[in-house]
Amino acid sequence: MQALVIEPVEPSDKTHRVAGARHGVIRNVSFNERPGECRVRVTYAGICGTDLELLRGYAAYEGIPGHEFVGVVEDAPIGEQHWIGKRVVGEINAGCNTCEWCHAGIREHCPDRTVLGIVNRDGAFATHLSIPPQNLYEVPASLTDEVAVFVEPTAAACEILTQVEVTRSSRVAIVGDGRLGLLIGQVLRSTGADVTLIGRHEHKLNLGNQLGLVTSSSNEVLPQKSFDFTIDATGQPGGLRRALELVRPRGTVVMKSTFHGETPISLWPAVVDEITLVGSRCGPFDKGIAMLEQGTVQTAPLVSGIFQLDDFGSAFDLAGRSLKVLLKP
Amino acid sequence: MQALVIEPVEPSDKTHRVAGARHGVIRNVSFNERPGECRVRVTYAGICGTDLELLRGYAAYEGIPGHEFVGVVEDAPIGEQHWIGKRVVGEINAGCNTCEWCHAGIREHCPDRTVLGIVNRDGAFATHLSIPPQNLYEVPASLTDEVAVFVEPTAAACEILTQVEVTRSSRVAIVGDGRLGLLIGQVLRSTGADVTLIGRHEHKLNLGNQLGLVTSSSNEVLPQKSFDFTIDATGQPGGLRRALELVRPRGTVVMKSTFHGETPISLWPAVVDEITLVGSRCGPFDKGIAMLEQGTVQTAPLVSGIFQLDDFGSAFDLAGRSLKVLLKP
Repeated sequence: MQALVIEPVEPSDKTHRVAGARHGVIRNVSFNERPGECRVRVTYAGICGTDLELLRGYAAYEGIPGHEFVGVVEDAPIGEQHWIGKRVVGEINAGCNTCEWCHAGIREHCPDRTVLGIVNRDGAFATHLSIPPQNLYEVPASLTDEVAVFVEPTAAACEILTQVEVTRSSRVAIVGDGRLGLLIGQVLRSTGADVTLIGRHEHKLNLGNQLGLVTSSSNEVLPQKSFDFTIDATGQPGGLRRALELVRPRGTVVMKSTFHGETPISLWPAVVDEITLVGSRCGPFDKGIAMLEQGTVQTAPLVSGIFQLDDFGSAFDLAGRSLKVLLKP
Repeated sequence: MQALVIEPVEPSDKTHRVAGARHGVIRNVSFNERPGECRVRVTYAGICGTDLELLRGYAAYEGIPGHEFVGVVEDAPIGEQHWIGKRVVGEINAGCNTCEWCHAGIREHCPDRTVLGIVNRDGAFATHLSIPPQNLYEVPASLTDEVAVFVEPTAAACEILTQVEVTRSSRVAIVGDGRLGLLIGQVLRSTGADVTLIGRHEHKLNLGNQLGLVTSSSNEVLPQKSFDFTIDATGQPGGLRRALELVRPRGTVVMKSTFHGETPISLWPAVVDEITLVGSRCGPFDKGIAMLEQGTVQTAPLVSGIFQLDDFGSAFDLAGRSLKVLLKP
């Protein structure tokens, strides 16, 4: 099969001077058949901020990246063959099935988990991937492939609603007008809350307006300490600082950004104002699918481009300065 | 009246070379009579980590520090004269009485508040202080002055129980074996939780054992990611890092340390593990008083020394390397 593979840069390669640097190459590799799992032919895979970070060396990942996908099951183990031929999306965390987390059904926090395209498991930027059948969700007929590929990031946005109680009387600010910020904005808006999307990019903010969000340019002065909830979806160290400035005393900051390295940050104001900060990662696929089926979350305006796997260089380049870029392996 | 006053160091003073440095001096100052407030003769005042930080320049405070006290009301405004002669302790935040926070009874988050000995209000390291009557609590006869001076920090420890749900099945680690850590340990132990106090000082850990806490030296290897709740009570940047290492996925870190400056910290593991961080400051005096009356919190072993105001240099010196030091103005 064909796949995008992240590999360490050879020390002899003079074009990369950063220690521990990684680069991506297209290779013909053999399919990594995992016992008891399904083989999925990938229809679309989405490029996420984490993928851009992985290529910069985050988590020192080597292998095939990609964790947002929609595909068709080509093969399945005995007892799971009803999956064959089905259109599917899949949760990205595969647990050990023996620890207390897995027994509680919370695979995403299994200490021995593998994570599709992120931790010890080849991902979706390939013609095929292997995934446990218990991670699969059948895509309803009402969702096209181009929409279904957004189930994973929409579920991640929905995770916020499982962690904090946003109501229609809440004032919410989302810092970051990227693909994740625009999904989170639509998900949180569904509660009836007053949601403001803050960002630096006029065209992304305009898109936010079209999707029904109040928007604010980063240059605008907003009242400090005035929002009940602020969400950092920037993927940058400065995002958390801004989220902390905008949240009211006893308010909540949701941290959605994973980025490499340390952030110098003053946390004493969060102590004085008794702020709660909540880390938030993967979310419930059933809720993500429902949001997309109901049309609560619109994804078509978020697609900036669709590329063949061979053309991953252009795809990643565009993903670095636009919204969602899809690969079609 | 006599008071310890924090003042900026004159640029001509060659013994202090740090820009913005502060020093403390004993001065005879006139009592700052605030209309509508009570005049309290201070019996004891406790030195807290924040006071040590204020003398180092935290919050650029100038004036009389000190916010833990017990005293006797000497004068009160019309309508509040029933306070005269009463033994009292007092909440440290004085609100504007007009904002939504004050209307909700949450003076500690009034944006225009003054704070005893910390923000725009002379504090307790003086023979007398001025405080609004609504901040006062009468000290029950069963509490000696030496115990009652611990009401403020005990209330601050109790604040944690108003913010997070620690139960008898919880595993809790407190990072920091200082005066605050030892109070928090006793307060959280009262829930029946399994509480471990972690610190660097053999004599403080021994004291923790005597107070019924499980203790662990900072050199000991503890299982990472194993505690439901971790509390940073170190007053140092490293404390939060340690608290984050020890908390389990989806667990909670309570931040009790205020210190000057920025902390370089990796927050992405808190995102991946979906950790909740909660800032925690002042707490409910009624709960603090109850904990001391019931004997749930023992304070006698925590008193390292009692000094006259004149001898504040020795008092602060001892407070920097021991437990609670009291001033007797």
